[in-house]
Amino acid sequence: MESGASLVSTTGALPCYVAFSQLLGLTVVTMTGAWLGLYRGGIAWEGVLQFNVHPLCMVIGLIFLQGDALLVYRVFRKEAKRTTKVLHGLLHVFAFVIALVGLVAVFDYHKKEGYADLYSLHSWFGILVFVLYFVQWLMGFSFFLFPGASFSLRSRYRPQHIFFGATIFLLSVGTALLGLKEALLFELGAKYSTFVPEGVLANLLGLLLACFGATVLYILTRADWKRPAQAEEQALSMDFKTLTEGDSPSSQ
Amino acid sequence: MESGASLVSTTGALPCYVAFSQLLGLTVVTMTGAWLGLYRGGIAWEGVLQFNVHPLCMVIGLIFLQGDALLVYRVFRKEAKRTTKVLHGLLHVFAFVIALVGLVAVFDYHKKEGYADLYSLHSWFGILVFVLYFVQWLMGFSFFLFPGASFSLRSRYRPQHIFFGATIFLLSVGTALLGLKEALLFELGAKYSTFVPEGVLANLLGLLLACFGATVLYILTRADWKRPAQAEEQALSMDFKTLTEGDSPSSQ
Repeated sequence: MESGASLVSTTGALPCYVAFSQLLGLTVVTMTGAWLGLYRGGIAWEGVLQFNVHPLCMVIGLIFLQGDALLVYRVFRKEAKRTTKVLHGLLHVFAFVIALVGLVAVFDYHKKEGYADLYSLHSWFGILVFVLYFVQWLMGFSFFLFPGASFSLRSRYRPQHIFFGATIFLLSVGTALLGLKEALLFELGAKYSTFVPEGVLANLLGLLLACFGATVLYILTRADWKRPAQAEEQALSMDFKTLTEGDSPSSQ
Repeated sequence: MESGASLVSTTGALPCYVAFSQLLGLTVVTMTGAWLGLYRGGIAWEGVLQFNVHPLCMVIGLIFLQGDALLVYRVFRKEAKRTTKVLHGLLHVFAFVIALVGLVAVFDYHKKEGYADLYSLHSWFGILVFVLYFVQWLMGFSFFLFPGASFSLRSRYRPQHIFFGATIFLLSVGTALLGLKEALLFELGAKYSTFVPEGVLANLLGLLLACFGATVLYILTRADWKRPAQAEEQALSMDFKTLTEGDSPSSQ
């Protein structure tokens, strides 16, 4: 009863924080679009504008959608675990596909323009994040959606999945900031130090990107906003015949 | 008994992770020194070399020492809370003073050379981190070292202090990466894309900076490595006369 009472009193602010995170996320996506539209000529798959597909897709996929995929377990904390799990996996698939389009765009643009690939800190981080993201998704699918892993194995892997999920998300935010910085220095050069509107807008975008990352992290790490354990979770584990593998839920 | 047994079995790897974090941290500091020595002419307080004081001080103060200050509660998890707390606060003071020298160096260098201040994303993040770090230290001192805050107030503020501490540390790592990127693009320009040794070394340094950040975060967030509650903590709270303010440790 006591923990139930504290749950009611402390989750009151969760919807406000989630709403704030969505406002930040949508602002970040809109500002990226505005920056590319106002100062970089917009977006197209052909010509120099093909590059602009890259930042927009990465911000939508690996920032906004990835962040929202992490929040699913807090937003739908009272829904069935299986539904939430599928939504979490699906949002990551959308994020991955959109990011893949963004990745193809920049490699294709580099090839057409004769630019070197993968020399910068941004690109090293980018490739690392992309590979880690894919591996994390495969691992998550194998352990939590594919009905093969035992309850014990899932319980042991879960903390690692959560830690690496948050770390990959934070690395994505860091990579976006490095990319933004690169795009500004390449294009603006010495003009950047004269506080031109594009520089100021992009700096604000950078700060908002970090704010979105911090807000998602805050919602994820608030102990009293974590998903409460539900009886159905044990039942679901039994659906996957995990108990026949010698592990009992009570051993966790 | 069960939790005690699991504590013994699961904290076995903690010293290995801490040793790995220290190896990473010292490598990052050494590589920063090597980069500045090999490719930027070394360090001095006069002339163009004054700028180089900035990255070295920031990496020692706001990356290595700040990271170690966060780890104090895991490394000395069996020592007296008060001793650990004082060490945590002191390490942050050292980190702050060294970072302050780094900050003065870059502003002084900019002034002498006639460069603009605070126009770049790196500088916006840097000032934000520095102010947040100072405020966090003041808040931490007021709540946890200064004998005025009640036990209840401390318990309510503690999760915020931990979250903002980790966030400021991660923002520091992000800011260092932005600064590294800026230094590379300013100096190398188009040569960066030809995989010159300085670019490759600095990219590796960037990856190691992120690895250090991720390792510290992993050690901090491992639930079974958290400091166990000790009886002396309640006694200490009583030393500060918190119980006379109407709060009982048992109410937590």
